[in-house]
Amino acid sequence: MAIQAILFDAYGTLFDVYSIGRLADKLFPGQGDALAALWRAKQIEYTQLRTLCSTYKPFWEVTQDALVFSCKKLGLNLDLDAQQALMSQYAKLSPFPECLSVLQQLRAQGLRLAILSNGNSQMLEAVVKAAGMQALFNHVLSVDSVQKYKTAPEAYQIGTDMLGTGAKNILFVSSNCWDVCGATWFGYKAFWVNRAGAPMEELGVTPYGQGSSLADLPAFVEHEREHS
Amino acid sequence: MAIQAILFDAYGTLFDVYSIGRLADKLFPGQGDALAALWRAKQIEYTQLRTLCSTYKPFWEVTQDALVFSCKKLGLNLDLDAQQALMSQYAKLSPFPECLSVLQQLRAQGLRLAILSNGNSQMLEAVVKAAGMQALFNHVLSVDSVQKYKTAPEAYQIGTDMLGTGAKNILFVSSNCWDVCGATWFGYKAFWVNRAGAPMEELGVTPYGQGSSLADLPAFVEHEREHS
Repeated sequence: MAIQAILFDAYGTLFDVYSIGRLADKLFPGQGDALAALWRAKQIEYTQLRTLCSTYKPFWEVTQDALVFSCKKLGLNLDLDAQQALMSQYAKLSPFPECLSVLQQLRAQGLRLAILSNGNSQMLEAVVKAAGMQALFNHVLSVDSVQKYKTAPEAYQIGTDMLGTGAKNILFVSSNCWDVCGATWFGYKAFWVNRAGAPMEELGVTPYGQGSSLADLPAFVEHEREHS
Repeated sequence: MAIQAILFDAYGTLFDVYSIGRLADKLFPGQGDALAALWRAKQIEYTQLRTLCSTYKPFWEVTQDALVFSCKKLGLNLDLDAQQALMSQYAKLSPFPECLSVLQQLRAQGLRLAILSNGNSQMLEAVVKAAGMQALFNHVLSVDSVQKYKTAPEAYQIGTDMLGTGAKNILFVSSNCWDVCGATWFGYKAFWVNRAGAPMEELGVTPYGQGSSLADLPAFVEHEREHS
């Protein structure tokens, strides 16, 4: 059966988390990229550890913990002003430049669109609103409702439950390769937005589709519908 | 109640995984440290993702997958000879210099000693034997029996099941801070061997004890026994 809906990861996929590096570099000259990269890696690691051990804590708090650790590790003095400045960026992350027009095209193709993110609802609502995308999504879903982060199957299942259709009829779109693997293991058709041209993780997964930006999605979906 | 047994993590705690960097540097001059660090990070990430998604695969294979990915990511041409040379190092990793004498002291203090590792049994037996440590451990335990990697509670529970005593009577020793957190969440008294002087992970955990090498263990245990 053809794809009926598209489920997007948010951070890194629709919204540019690494854009935080620019602010970080103003606060800590020469260290912005290193801080942004370590912060992001720790943020993800903490979600995985907390899910494995059933010690869930909302994404906003996990993100803050990861920031504090990363600054300690890099020897950066994170005062309260800097912490608030960096954290508040998360509420107003820029969407990638192609994002809005691609979402509009996909809507015009008759697809239902949703977000399924590790972010808690308040964070997601803020960033979607700041980008002017409220009207484009049928659902903005947070793993907060199951208190488990991706890649736990319970997190992915929120998408099928809310869209009311099987995982095989949903294209799950993420720029995070681990997320593509988790979604594929769950049963989604997964599309990897591989902006950096990174190698595929060695996890025995082949993504259903792949592109270098969201701009590759409309043609991919069109082609998939014609051939299914 | 006083500590009755000590449960050790293996890789990074008893055996020096970063020593692989030296061989890696011979094979890929100037890139050895980067390869060793990425390989280790990916190895751990893959164990966590596979545990979250119930797609377990033995540690030897996960380690090989992580090596292949890391070389692709760093643009290194990993031929079969190099792959075999690097993987075979895992079977004969050097123990840290203080390791053997500390284990002997702890035995002399009347403690039962065991290993609880992500490594599969064949890998563990090889590395323990190569280090001449067979006689020192009451148990060499692998998570392979539950097909879940640390930090899953099922993995930590192998230790209490096999030692036949409560987690509170066991000191869990690891150089991996995430492992110290997982063990603490499970209920062990955890001791962090913080060789690098790294900051504590921001996971809301305070280790029961901490030292800069295994050499700090005998006095710590002695002191803990006198005061419990």
